[in-house]
Amino acid sequence: MTAAQIDVVAVGNAIVDIIAPADDSLLTAEGLTKGGMQLVDAVRADALYAKMGAAHEASGGSAANTIAGLAALGRTCGFIGQVADDQFGKVFSHDMRAIGVEYTTQLRGEEPPTAQCLIFVTPDGQRTMNTFLGASQFLPAAALDKAMIERAAVLYLEGYLWDPEEPRAAMRAAIDIARAAGRKIAFTLSDTFVIARHGDDFRALLTEGLIDILFANDGEIRALMGTGDLEAAVSAAAALVPTLVVTKSEEGALAVHQGVRTDVAAQPVAKVVDTTGAGDLFAAGFLAGQAEGRSIADSLRMGAICAAEVISHYGPRPEADLKALVAAQLG
Amino acid sequence: MTAAQIDVVAVGNAIVDIIAPADDSLLTAEGLTKGGMQLVDAVRADALYAKMGAAHEASGGSAANTIAGLAALGRTCGFIGQVADDQFGKVFSHDMRAIGVEYTTQLRGEEPPTAQCLIFVTPDGQRTMNTFLGASQFLPAAALDKAMIERAAVLYLEGYLWDPEEPRAAMRAAIDIARAAGRKIAFTLSDTFVIARHGDDFRALLTEGLIDILFANDGEIRALMGTGDLEAAVSAAAALVPTLVVTKSEEGALAVHQGVRTDVAAQPVAKVVDTTGAGDLFAAGFLAGQAEGRSIADSLRMGAICAAEVISHYGPRPEADLKALVAAQLG
Repeated sequence: MTAAQIDVVAVGNAIVDIIAPADDSLLTAEGLTKGGMQLVDAVRADALYAKMGAAHEASGGSAANTIAGLAALGRTCGFIGQVADDQFGKVFSHDMRAIGVEYTTQLRGEEPPTAQCLIFVTPDGQRTMNTFLGASQFLPAAALDKAMIERAAVLYLEGYLWDPEEPRAAMRAAIDIARAAGRKIAFTLSDTFVIARHGDDFRALLTEGLIDILFANDGEIRALMGTGDLEAAVSAAAALVPTLVVTKSEEGALAVHQGVRTDVAAQPVAKVVDTTGAGDLFAAGFLAGQAEGRSIADSLRMGAICAAEVISHYGPRPEADLKALVAAQLG
Repeated sequence: MTAAQIDVVAVGNAIVDIIAPADDSLLTAEGLTKGGMQLVDAVRADALYAKMGAAHEASGGSAANTIAGLAALGRTCGFIGQVADDQFGKVFSHDMRAIGVEYTTQLRGEEPPTAQCLIFVTPDGQRTMNTFLGASQFLPAAALDKAMIERAAVLYLEGYLWDPEEPRAAMRAAIDIARAAGRKIAFTLSDTFVIARHGDDFRALLTEGLIDILFANDGEIRALMGTGDLEAAVSAAAALVPTLVVTKSEEGALAVHQGVRTDVAAQPVAKVVDTTGAGDLFAAGFLAGQAEGRSIADSLRMGAICAAEVISHYGPRPEADLKALVAAQLG
């Protein structure tokens, strides 16, 4: 095992977000579950887009947002995810490379188009996501940059991408590559709908000892462990993974690392504008803290600082100087 | 002449803006003139994009931004401009229709793509624009929605679009349609480079009495009238047009309407974030004020209020409730 030359390589959906403010009445009329994510086909995406107000576009994708956060925190990163050969694919690729992220996945042709996520942001700052996966769901195992994964200290995987078949096979292959190279593997559960469909897979990954760091929010960890009781779920999950990180929105976050539990409060936010990317940026802060050799408590605090930044403005990626924000609070 | 059913119909470039913060050193290295607009071809656009940081995208285009402002102020509007059949074309069309603007121009095929403007925003809030005109420069006269122009009280034309040949012919045809229907014509000079190339055309339009309202900034009106002296330029231009509106950035704005001069101060702004769209939104406020039957002074103040809103955030179109902002200050 050689020393890692990259801090984190992620495999995730490569998505362009289309973001607009919306009233709660629109969510109701369209039958959308506030705060959730649903997959939509092209026809439904067009219908929802027609109901959306004037929007703006920005690169997104859960693991990709985490990588953007890590890059903003000064870590070296790589990303693997599938876009199409279209304008949104060009936008996504540009935004990755512009922040210094190694991104070598080849474009896939014009159809289906690059993944798009229609995000309705209600006045309370909650985001409701409708994802058309397009090209993203066709990431083949052959697209994995094996050498890049081998060079990275941490492989970060997005649960969302476990749902479609080809990327699931690709992620299994990525796990094998990382394991063989002696690297750590971090996994984020992403959403309860993924757990409903693939919970058995996830629990198997944990019991087989293939995951080193598991990220979840409170709903996800309860769904994974099949209990409505958060504390019971945390205890059960913590027994299966060396490091468990659970975010609880405005209630803060916790980690259980080798049996030791640490809790931190949420970072205060003057006004929650758009919660898109909160969990993604929490993971970025935590992983950056670990890469810097910080304590679990300070790594959690870094996660909270990064999450607070991204929910204070529209869009899923950091805009302020995250390094400066962290330095001002944690030194 | 029947009563107008639409307040303003504009003919302009249909552009998607790609916006990113940039340091002054990048402008210097790339030989870009700060605060200006330059046309770029596809190769140069790609090269500049590669130098740009992570960006976000939003519908833009000068006259289109003005129409977005008018719509936000509650006016009925139409827009005519050419996009391609691609993702950015879909974005532009969506954003127009989502704000209630009548937009009937047909998509033009895939090549060239929809116009894109790479906007570098320096820390002082100045925007430096690099426009790849793509499909926009191929707006044919045949694409004009004659009935829509005939129904509109004001036809608003963008000087930028006078530069390419096909839209210039289209705008001449639009002027004929509006004149025949007894409508007013407003024209914005857009940029000194357009005046350098087409000043004779613009002066001819004025002397032929084809323009009712002329919008310019201080540099443009001096260029048009061939004098470095602003007051001399204003006097000379005011003799050629019933209503002249001249914006002077932080120095405020003035109008000369049927020989009577009115000056207003700029609206205070806590922090200038991005000056993109300032002139466009000033025109929107002024035209909305006139449509509401307000005085020239109050119409200028509405322009100043709308310009102040758009420069207080990233992006070329209003985000706050312009109607409420105007009501709070002018009633």
